[in-house]
Amino acid sequence: MKSLLIAAASVTLLTALPAQAADLAATAAGLRDKALSDPTAWDVLESLTTEVGARPVGSPAMARAKDWSVETFKRLGFANVKVESFETGAWSRGPESASVISPYPQALHILGLGGSSPTPKGGLEAEIVVFSTYADLLAQPVGSLKGKIAVVTQKMTRTQDGSGYGAINAQRTSGPLEAAKRGAAAYLTRSLSTDDTRLPHTGGAAPAGIPAAALSTVDAELLDHMAARGKPIKVRLDMQSSFNPKAQAWNISGEIVGREKPDEVLVIGGHLDSWDPGTGAVDDGAGVAIMTGAAKVIASLPQAPRRTIRVVMFGSEEQGGSGGAYATAHKDEITNIVFVGESDEGAGVIWKVDLPKGSRAAPAMQTFANVVAPLKVAVTGDPSRFGGSDVAGMVRLGAPVADLHQDASRYFDLHHSADDTLDKVDPKELAQNVAVWTALLYTVADSDIDFRKFLAPEAK
Amino acid sequence: MKSLLIAAASVTLLTALPAQAADLAATAAGLRDKALSDPTAWDVLESLTTEVGARPVGSPAMARAKDWSVETFKRLGFANVKVESFETGAWSRGPESASVISPYPQALHILGLGGSSPTPKGGLEAEIVVFSTYADLLAQPVGSLKGKIAVVTQKMTRTQDGSGYGAINAQRTSGPLEAAKRGAAAYLTRSLSTDDTRLPHTGGAAPAGIPAAALSTVDAELLDHMAARGKPIKVRLDMQSSFNPKAQAWNISGEIVGREKPDEVLVIGGHLDSWDPGTGAVDDGAGVAIMTGAAKVIASLPQAPRRTIRVVMFGSEEQGGSGGAYATAHKDEITNIVFVGESDEGAGVIWKVDLPKGSRAAPAMQTFANVVAPLKVAVTGDPSRFGGSDVAGMVRLGAPVADLHQDASRYFDLHHSADDTLDKVDPKELAQNVAVWTALLYTVADSDIDFRKFLAPEAK
Repeated sequence: MKSLLIAAASVTLLTALPAQAADLAATAAGLRDKALSDPTAWDVLESLTTEVGARPVGSPAMARAKDWSVETFKRLGFANVKVESFETGAWSRGPESASVISPYPQALHILGLGGSSPTPKGGLEAEIVVFSTYADLLAQPVGSLKGKIAVVTQKMTRTQDGSGYGAINAQRTSGPLEAAKRGAAAYLTRSLSTDDTRLPHTGGAAPAGIPAAALSTVDAELLDHMAARGKPIKVRLDMQSSFNPKAQAWNISGEIVGREKPDEVLVIGGHLDSWDPGTGAVDDGAGVAIMTGAAKVIASLPQAPRRTIRVVMFGSEEQGGSGGAYATAHKDEITNIVFVGESDEGAGVIWKVDLPKGSRAAPAMQTFANVVAPLKVAVTGDPSRFGGSDVAGMVRLGAPVADLHQDASRYFDLHHSADDTLDKVDPKELAQNVAVWTALLYTVADSDIDFRKFLAPEAK
Repeated sequence: MKSLLIAAASVTLLTALPAQAADLAATAAGLRDKALSDPTAWDVLESLTTEVGARPVGSPAMARAKDWSVETFKRLGFANVKVESFETGAWSRGPESASVISPYPQALHILGLGGSSPTPKGGLEAEIVVFSTYADLLAQPVGSLKGKIAVVTQKMTRTQDGSGYGAINAQRTSGPLEAAKRGAAAYLTRSLSTDDTRLPHTGGAAPAGIPAAALSTVDAELLDHMAARGKPIKVRLDMQSSFNPKAQAWNISGEIVGREKPDEVLVIGGHLDSWDPGTGAVDDGAGVAIMTGAAKVIASLPQAPRRTIRVVMFGSEEQGGSGGAYATAHKDEITNIVFVGESDEGAGVIWKVDLPKGSRAAPAMQTFANVVAPLKVAVTGDPSRFGGSDVAGMVRLGAPVADLHQDASRYFDLHHSADDTLDKVDPKELAQNVAVWTALLYTVADSDIDFRKFLAPEAK
């Protein structure tokens, strides 16, 4: 009932708009429909995951991905294709293994965390102490875990908005540090995942000077079962890894140049780098594909929109560095950046959009909300907050941002694991993302809305 | 409507039975209900998967499993606990890796097939030829794949009765031989699985003198995508394995001794051995647990049933040998074996029971059908055929058998992979299995039904 009333109100608004706004709405709706069947995003994603695959920063695959990116932008007709180099730290996995050696010898499935220290050559053996919550680990006195392997097996909650991940993120990112502080020789965490497969999920962690790895959810439960028997459990851990503090990395961009205000730029993107176990399909090949696809659909118009749309494939999100490098390099341009956005939450449908504070009532945004209503997108009054790691630096410098929330219900089954592969992406859901971004980018680029005017002074 | 009519007819039948049959029905129903909440099966399965884990024949873990088995039977009060040794061939996995080396370098996730030859030390490199169906491979002339790696990527169908597996089983079991016949240097098959995770599924194959492995379903699709580009694809394969033609193995059994006819024996069981990647929970820890649990529930009666129930934990089903060894060792006893059965199709609910031909109308079997009707079990007129690999030898010698079909819809997501773990078992579904077996074993062991009389002379 409520939604019907809202729809009716919106129609009234729309008919009250001037002719130009009606053109904007008609064009945006046409682009939306075109986006729903445009093959670009799927083709880009299929190409990246098939021809390049996993592409951790600092790897030869990432260098191939950079070349793939340039070639893709050029092939699709983007202008001003640009490769911006920067240096960042890159952790690289080596051979890894783990097993319970007594009293119940069994192999364990692990993935070292980015930032982990290696074990001594030949590995280490130690008794484990299993904590069923992260708080239980934090409650231990400093020094109390001397020589032990601390294990945290707290489970993650499946949620639509992905908040289950943020809620226990510290278990991975700070767990090694907290364990080390308490004297632990190594740290194991249950994967921050909602899956029930025996594939572990990696991710970054603050360097703590000790080896740190993620157990598959299945192996975490196996240790829970073993620990419940009350006998000392000894684990053998062998993890070799290396760290390059000055790895070469790249942000690659291409543009649809604005016809009236080419210097006013919408900077959008996804990240090209990925963790090493999967093929980086949902994290974040999908984001790269969605943004490239959306810009390409807009480029099919007889004339370009007024403002420039710049798609950036960021080169080091997982291990950090690309967002900061981009903001630094484009500091002088920041007042001309009229909008930033990143797609980096998988390939599930967009269900909610938070626009820059106060902009929802603006005619162009009313148009946007109407155009994406059939795609089941809630354009709420919640102000945008984040945008994504790679645009956060520009947001801090004053660039306006929107949050397009993707349905993350299934994302954390796949995220940072070998299961992050093309077959997990639903082409229709991917296309819905392209359609929503197309509608938003077009209505911002080709209308007179200026998000910069909505920014509260304290946000600048 | 139909089911209501059947139920009404059954009630009529039941009330028409003599007093003794009514006692049988009441006791069977009581045991069924007890089985639904009895913890034995779950506890046995939890103990085996936690304390022993994977237990391939010929491994130290299998020797531990044998000791676990003896201890479990004794702890649960079984009589005549017996370990029968035999020798069998045992293939053991060594280090394995595979990757595409050109033109799209990517790691591949594989598991060598049991019976596979190792690659030369240091591996082999060869071009792949991808066949999207097994028939396409078979259509190639002898010698035509010289020096190539043959890859078959045909998909498996998900079915309730597991027939999707049988339908393409030759792709794994005979594929290596057929590829070798055509000159192939190695063979890769898409895992015979319905899952979409990046965990491959192993299994036995006829030794073909070439290396043979299963790709995860995800990796098979990755090769499909690469092959569609039409360029030569080179793969590197390194598989080390060993084969022991005379590995020590064991069938372990325990009995509930019959009170009136102890020499008339129901021989039932599951197999204790497993493939190496998981913890052998659904294949076939579940079968071992269900049968042990059912016998234990029956043993809780104030007096034992008339006939003996013998639970066997068979020691080499996956690589073969335990069924043949058991039949040979018990040849002289065969005319006293009144029933055989194996649970070896996972831990999904029993949905259909095929009794020995012609026995469905016997009063005891009518009682059984009535008792399990609330558990949603269809007792059909289809004659039993198979029973399971470990009892097939006894069936060939003339022992009567029933098929209790489990819902296999999800079984092949897990089967022979690292995902064959305890967390995949639903305790309620496991308990339904225990309840159905309890009802059948009890009605056979404590009534005057004699399945041997129903055997057609030609089946003997």
